[in-house]
Amino acid sequence: MPSPATPGRAGTPSPPGQATSLPGWQASHWFNTPRPIELKDLRGRVVLVHAFQMLCPACVSHGLPQALRVHEAFQGEAVTVIGLHTVFEHHEVMGSQALQAFIQEYRLPFPIGIDQAAEAGPLPVTMAQWGLNGTPSVVLFDRQGRARLHRFGVVDDLVLGAAIGQLLAERTPVAASVSLDRVGTGTARPACDDEGCVSR
Amino acid sequence: MPSPATPGRAGTPSPPGQATSLPGWQASHWFNTPRPIELKDLRGRVVLVHAFQMLCPACVSHGLPQALRVHEAFQGEAVTVIGLHTVFEHHEVMGSQALQAFIQEYRLPFPIGIDQAAEAGPLPVTMAQWGLNGTPSVVLFDRQGRARLHRFGVVDDLVLGAAIGQLLAERTPVAASVSLDRVGTGTARPACDDEGCVSR
Amino acid sequence: MPSPATPGRAGTPSPPGQATSLPGWQASHWFNTPRPIELKDLRGRVVLVHAFQMLCPACVSHGLPQALRVHEAFQGEAVTVIGLHTVFEHHEVMGSQALQAFIQEYRLPFPIGIDQAAEAGPLPVTMAQWGLNGTPSVVLFDRQGRARLHRFGVVDDLVLGAAIGQLLAERTPVAASVSLDRVGTGTARPACDDEGCVSR
Amino acid sequence: MPSPATPGRAGTPSPPGQATSLPGWQASHWFNTPRPIELKDLRGRVVLVHAFQMLCPACVSHGLPQALRVHEAFQGEAVTVIGLHTVFEHHEVMGSQALQAFIQEYRLPFPIGIDQAAEAGPLPVTMAQWGLNGTPSVVLFDRQGRARLHRFGVVDDLVLGAAIGQLLAERTPVAASVSLDRVGTGTARPACDDEGCVSR
Repeated sequence: MPSPATPGRAGTPSPPGQATSLPGWQASHWFNTPRPIELKDLRGRVVLVHAFQMLCPACVSHGLPQALRVHEAFQGEAVTVIGLHTVFEHHEVMGSQALQAFIQEYRLPFPIGIDQAAEAGPLPVTMAQWGLNGTPSVVLFDRQGRARLHRFGVVDDLVLGAAIGQLLAERTPVAASVSLDRVGTGTARPACDDEGCVSR
Repeated sequence: MPSPATPGRAGTPSPPGQATSLPGWQASHWFNTPRPIELKDLRGRVVLVHAFQMLCPACVSHGLPQALRVHEAFQGEAVTVIGLHTVFEHHEVMGSQALQAFIQEYRLPFPIGIDQAAEAGPLPVTMAQWGLNGTPSVVLFDRQGRARLHRFGVVDDLVLGAAIGQLLAERTPVAASVSLDRVGTGTARPACDDEGCVSR
Repeated sequence: MPSPATPGRAGTPSPPGQATSLPGWQASHWFNTPRPIELKDLRGRVVLVHAFQMLCPACVSHGLPQALRVHEAFQGEAVTVIGLHTVFEHHEVMGSQALQAFIQEYRLPFPIGIDQAAEAGPLPVTMAQWGLNGTPSVVLFDRQGRARLHRFGVVDDLVLGAAIGQLLAERTPVAASVSLDRVGTGTARPACDDEGCVSR
Repeated sequence: MPSPATPGRAGTPSPPGQATSLPGWQASHWFNTPRPIELKDLRGRVVLVHAFQMLCPACVSHGLPQALRVHEAFQGEAVTVIGLHTVFEHHEVMGSQALQAFIQEYRLPFPIGIDQAAEAGPLPVTMAQWGLNGTPSVVLFDRQGRARLHRFGVVDDLVLGAAIGQLLAERTPVAASVSLDRVGTGTARPACDDEGCVSR
């Protein structure tokens, strides 16, 4: 399977024919929105999902500021930024009340959902279904709701901008296939480092 | 009262004769130390107290990284860095368990105490006794245990370095008076901004 | 005429039908290339021209590092970065020998041409023909050789990335018109500031 | 000989008894001052000499901005910042006219002297007499005119601040010896890299 972001192909989302049939997110609670948001509500728009944990250092220093920059830079464009609180560790201190204080203090303006806790195990539902390696991760959906870029760790602004630009340029429907284009460090790492927090 | 850090006198701690007779800190719990630390245990050393809250954005982006740089830059010198968790808002989500997870994820290596909760009111004991405006704040004690610099908000590395250097250069006992040299923005501001979080 | 980069439409190159019929650059000397490069040699590729002066602070601190990041991030893509030394002041100390030392010390790897001096006046030929306000400026050409984005000053990586991504996504020929989409601060400013150097 | 800045002793100038009897600088031309400045004119003040070349990348990105920060942070203190243009390569494009344009464009406000060219060899006189490894270098003189800190490459703001603070704290005359405390990478490196430019 061709990977969309191997060195030398920076910023290239996977071709539409190789898009991913990821299900939408499942959120148990929302902030910064009067009602729950579903992926299918956003047809016609490019959607950037930023998966984070409030106590993940790379999310706070890199991922969330980048999500905020995207939110601001593409205000007038067909781009929606969604935060997804995918807690897979320290659950007891990253509950909804803690997240609410965090969102308030950091003044995050975009909609943020709490990834639905699983019936068993530390990984929340969406994080498990999407196969996310850890936090921060970004998943980029095209105007048809197909996952086209999937990244764990620190992503360069130029690269993310180029991917958004390419998806914005696609204006006509295309048939989707089901291959998964995921990019990450691949190997398990212990806990959190400068690149992010891994879940296994 | 001459202020030690008015514009044009950057990095100048107050003269020894105008030092402050602040009491030591009162901590209810400690991390990164096998036993509680008291100010009087540190006679002969320059002590930097970094007062912070784990959900204060300017503490996370500026104050704590600076405290870490001081801790590392002066490893072989007579300088001790102490973190003080002075929670004055969102108490319910910044308890000791949450702080423990925060310290672990951010890999903070220096001793950190939790400022003793007051019997009444949101301000913890040390924060109230020292008259801190908010977080982040730094208080610099000289080798005699006297408070010599007192700052709220973002402090420049050059300025903080110069103050530490001057206090390191003082090697003989000097008599202390009780004037308070405090530097801050002075006026109350609402909640948290890029400079820090204020308590009133 | 709709402008491609008014607030709220960040990163959107002008529509193909509103592209600009700018002539190619005219360079009197080249570095980092065995032979002169012309715009028409690059059909099929997205071309980023970074116009700079070696003694322009914003070019050195912002523009050239960004050009280098684009050069590196899009190595395997159909993107070419060209530097253009558009000297409009201090001509006597920014000649080809000085530029050669500059390129060597800063280790710039992409092709750099010296904008052809005019027969009269301080503005070099390409800079005048393209109507550049000053340095740094970026001009982005699409795969058909049409100017689609035109910016003076500091451009955000997300915005520039999105513009490149959109132009990369255009794979079929489209007819071009002659409107000019130029974005800049518009008003004349004296000499150089944090945003750049203006020529009038 | 104890070195003032080996790891673990950051920011500690050499003891007064181990200061260096460096001669003052020799400058052939000055900018930003109505008359030539000599080291002996500055008795009673701490003097930071920043040795740089206008085409040295680490000088432009790190050293000169730091010299400017020191100049501004210690405006009201007994600290003087002096720039010294120690050209040891590309002499033909870093003459006084080029430097003048550079100073103007970068808006450097402190006095800058051009290190006197040697009768033979590429190294200018002061650079050779002081044994500087390359650019950027900082040499810190105490209130008695004795060299107390000597650094090649990137110096941390906390460390430099602490050294300035310690020298400011010395207010009484002390006898000087002649040992040289020099700190640098020590080994020759080719040309310029992120740390600076070396002369051999």
